[in-house]
Amino acid sequence: MTDMPEPRPEANPIIKANYPRNCWWVATTSDQVQREPVALTLLEMPVVLYRKEDGGVVALDDRCPHRWAPLSSGKVTGDNIQCGYHGFTFGPQGDCVRIPSQSQIPSRCRVKRYAIEERPPFIWIWMGDPERIETGPPEQAQWPADPAFSFWTGETVADGNYMLLKENVLDLTHFGYVHATSFKILDWVNPPKVTTTDDTVTYRQEFIDCTLPPMFAEATGISMSKPVNRYNYGTYISPALNVATLDIEDPDPEPGTRSTYQFKVIHVTTPESPTRFRYLWFVGFDIPNMDPQMLLKFKNITDIGFAEDKAIIEAVHRRITHDPRHLDYPEIIVQTDQAAIQARRKLAAHLERDRQGPDAI
Amino acid sequence: MTDMPEPRPEANPIIKANYPRNCWWVATTSDQVQREPVALTLLEMPVVLYRKEDGGVVALDDRCPHRWAPLSSGKVTGDNIQCGYHGFTFGPQGDCVRIPSQSQIPSRCRVKRYAIEERPPFIWIWMGDPERIETGPPEQAQWPADPAFSFWTGETVADGNYMLLKENVLDLTHFGYVHATSFKILDWVNPPKVTTTDDTVTYRQEFIDCTLPPMFAEATGISMSKPVNRYNYGTYISPALNVATLDIEDPDPEPGTRSTYQFKVIHVTTPESPTRFRYLWFVGFDIPNMDPQMLLKFKNITDIGFAEDKAIIEAVHRRITHDPRHLDYPEIIVQTDQAAIQARRKLAAHLERDRQGPDAI
Amino acid sequence: MTDMPEPRPEANPIIKANYPRNCWWVATTSDQVQREPVALTLLEMPVVLYRKEDGGVVALDDRCPHRWAPLSSGKVTGDNIQCGYHGFTFGPQGDCVRIPSQSQIPSRCRVKRYAIEERPPFIWIWMGDPERIETGPPEQAQWPADPAFSFWTGETVADGNYMLLKENVLDLTHFGYVHATSFKILDWVNPPKVTTTDDTVTYRQEFIDCTLPPMFAEATGISMSKPVNRYNYGTYISPALNVATLDIEDPDPEPGTRSTYQFKVIHVTTPESPTRFRYLWFVGFDIPNMDPQMLLKFKNITDIGFAEDKAIIEAVHRRITHDPRHLDYPEIIVQTDQAAIQARRKLAAHLERDRQGPDAI
Repeated sequence: MTDMPEPRPEANPIIKANYPRNCWWVATTSDQVQREPVALTLLEMPVVLYRKEDGGVVALDDRCPHRWAPLSSGKVTGDNIQCGYHGFTFGPQGDCVRIPSQSQIPSRCRVKRYAIEERPPFIWIWMGDPERIETGPPEQAQWPADPAFSFWTGETVADGNYMLLKENVLDLTHFGYVHATSFKILDWVNPPKVTTTDDTVTYRQEFIDCTLPPMFAEATGISMSKPVNRYNYGTYISPALNVATLDIEDPDPEPGTRSTYQFKVIHVTTPESPTRFRYLWFVGFDIPNMDPQMLLKFKNITDIGFAEDKAIIEAVHRRITHDPRHLDYPEIIVQTDQAAIQARRKLAAHLERDRQGPDAI
Repeated sequence: MTDMPEPRPEANPIIKANYPRNCWWVATTSDQVQREPVALTLLEMPVVLYRKEDGGVVALDDRCPHRWAPLSSGKVTGDNIQCGYHGFTFGPQGDCVRIPSQSQIPSRCRVKRYAIEERPPFIWIWMGDPERIETGPPEQAQWPADPAFSFWTGETVADGNYMLLKENVLDLTHFGYVHATSFKILDWVNPPKVTTTDDTVTYRQEFIDCTLPPMFAEATGISMSKPVNRYNYGTYISPALNVATLDIEDPDPEPGTRSTYQFKVIHVTTPESPTRFRYLWFVGFDIPNMDPQMLLKFKNITDIGFAEDKAIIEAVHRRITHDPRHLDYPEIIVQTDQAAIQARRKLAAHLERDRQGPDAI
Repeated sequence: MTDMPEPRPEANPIIKANYPRNCWWVATTSDQVQREPVALTLLEMPVVLYRKEDGGVVALDDRCPHRWAPLSSGKVTGDNIQCGYHGFTFGPQGDCVRIPSQSQIPSRCRVKRYAIEERPPFIWIWMGDPERIETGPPEQAQWPADPAFSFWTGETVADGNYMLLKENVLDLTHFGYVHATSFKILDWVNPPKVTTTDDTVTYRQEFIDCTLPPMFAEATGISMSKPVNRYNYGTYISPALNVATLDIEDPDPEPGTRSTYQFKVIHVTTPESPTRFRYLWFVGFDIPNMDPQMLLKFKNITDIGFAEDKAIIEAVHRRITHDPRHLDYPEIIVQTDQAAIQARRKLAAHLERDRQGPDAI
């Protein structure tokens, strides 16, 4: 192979670590953490979570500072966690409380502790500078705790950059193509109205005198042939969270029935690395105590639909990462991309703030 | 691990992208492309192929310029292909003919289109500069369309550089070792005569008063113990194509039987990347309407034999790519390598022409 | 993805090639090499081993210098090995003795030959400078050939750096955590006494008036409740070899029984690469002809225990290689690490000697 020619210039792009550390992220859901240690990868960091005897959640770097074994392979004793290699034991603040082979504990022998805010159904984590911690995670993900709602949930891991999912849920003109046979929302064609605040981006799309797609007709009991008004809007709240709402307005309700309904979605994205993220969703109606069979049916439709999103996102990710000549080939931006483009700008500003802090690398 | 010493210098070689773009390559075979989109990787590029309503083959970059979804995950509508993400639709020339969410189509919204020449059984593709397109693919691969021939075919994907296969079929002294129990051609020992033209390299080996290996005896009906003459010759036609021929000459044919037969092989190599290629072969005799059972038997032998080549080539490739000290260890060149060495030179010249054109990177 | 921010600095550490070439390593065990070629990866080099007609072991670079096929895919003929690609044949010294296609043999056509010392049950190999070869491999691994011992053995491959295993067996305070339910040695808590020579590191731990863990009680017939003295000591002999001994002293033996027993362990580590090694162990008692059922039971316990070591070592290795911010996070060193730290120093000195020789890269 000695007289083979020079290679073409290296062009494979590196997907970047585009997630700010100074941000509330969703580590996992409340039901996933009990007394046993749970190992997670969050923003490339190994993290171990467990509950203390009083039920409070502890989050520590999942690495013993002695020989770097994962603490998650050890066991919880009282409020502490004991490494499975040599028994070094750490308290909920990350301080070493016991080294079995000696009485003196080196002052540097401690693990990083992360702040946790549990707001069921979510366990939020702050991975950034403790000095810059923000007051609580976003409020917009609280409705599943409201008994006025019936909801279902699901989770997947996608091999792609998390922003591809954020951009996906900010341009819903993909419904008619990606989800033509699952969600069956076929009339979402035009670009939405987009507004922004300092940190958020919101689209709004109105469907006046339109009919309801099957799932919404079934949930509300409104006939699929009856004209109603649909007001769709959704918001990029933070790198961790997008929410979406559909207000259904029946201008001529049957006697004794409601004239408005609300359908809500929470899209939670937690990057494990620049090329992989966990995607968690909660979906529900403001209808109490819905029939479990109906909820299960809706969960199945949603699982299928979000698997369709995962498939297309992973395919896009492969194109971005594997195409050797991508630089000749910029993205085409059209009007329906407006919300996603604005979200990229919010993210870029967030990352810039991240870099300027004392925790900057 | 902190006081571990410095690493040895990095020595893993990078296998180079040694395939000219200005060359006719075989994308696939005619039977593999119908109306449904077919996704291929050709010279590291994702390409989608489909047939128009008139049967003509279209080849486009398999990436929507909007959000980079693979067009192959969409569907063919009429002569166009519609992206499966947001419905952007492209015509056979790569021009965007529809964006569902808006009427205006940005002028840059188009995908690259590749020239196709279908000459059954092959679909040839030109991935290089359209201004430098050459007049048609090589003629030497046309015999399978000739009813005077009976043939069989096969295909595999090998994890190695495609030139390893080209070099393999230019030095057939490997028959006695790699294929001792499959092709059973055990008398190919001496170096062949090698001749070249501007672009091609041909070896020629003559076996006078020799016997026939089993497959050739069975196909021709000549006894394995009868001395005949065998004239083997093969040519590096281009980076995409090698061909080989065996002329069998029976100097004393049985009454009413032929005195000459021809056996032909087409070796098609299509790189997917510097470290992977598709290998496609057509093999046949100039005997019409051979018995299907005999053809199937010969196909089985060939599949086994070419799997032996794949195995040794992949093993060589692993040595080339994984040995950390390979630079101390040049190849030993002997007389039987003459054709392969000349082929490397033709390839190097081809790559040099490639670089000098306006399409150069 | 065009306006995404700059990536954080690359931080994934590279595990280094921390194995000296000028060292006797264990290639494999005597029973693993017969006449058929055996392919091994030793210190990143592909090596082929086979036995000559007189039983002597040959070790050659496993790459034909012609086209780099692995010689191990060929066959042994007499005392030689014949490449499976074009039949080039090499003698036990690595000299080419036959090229089938020509009579002249280029002087450079040879493969590197490695010195072998077979001392059953081990085949030792010298991969370094032949001029600097040391007089024979270490003597401390010879006891399995002594009929006074009964022993068992096992082998595994671990995805980690080999020094993690060396450090593991030099700090046995992990017994109470990693092996709490397998070896059941729960009283190894305090730091051992550590001594060194120019090249070796030895720990020593004494347990006076202590009881025996189950396996030792069963082997010796001493009751688990009887106080005895245990003298444990182990040595880092070389990068290839650690040994450990337990002397059991019964101060008040039953009439007609022995008052002392010896239990011995050989830990052999052979790196395949900086991130993978083979781990081979021999374990035995100085009790002749032990019951095969008892030996099998002990082998099962040992296999389980050493699989526990493999699991924790691989987990540590993943932390070392995958954590992007490890540099902020030095190891905490405590008193029980003393032997491991000394072993690192012996290794560093060995690697420094390696670099200074004429074989240095």
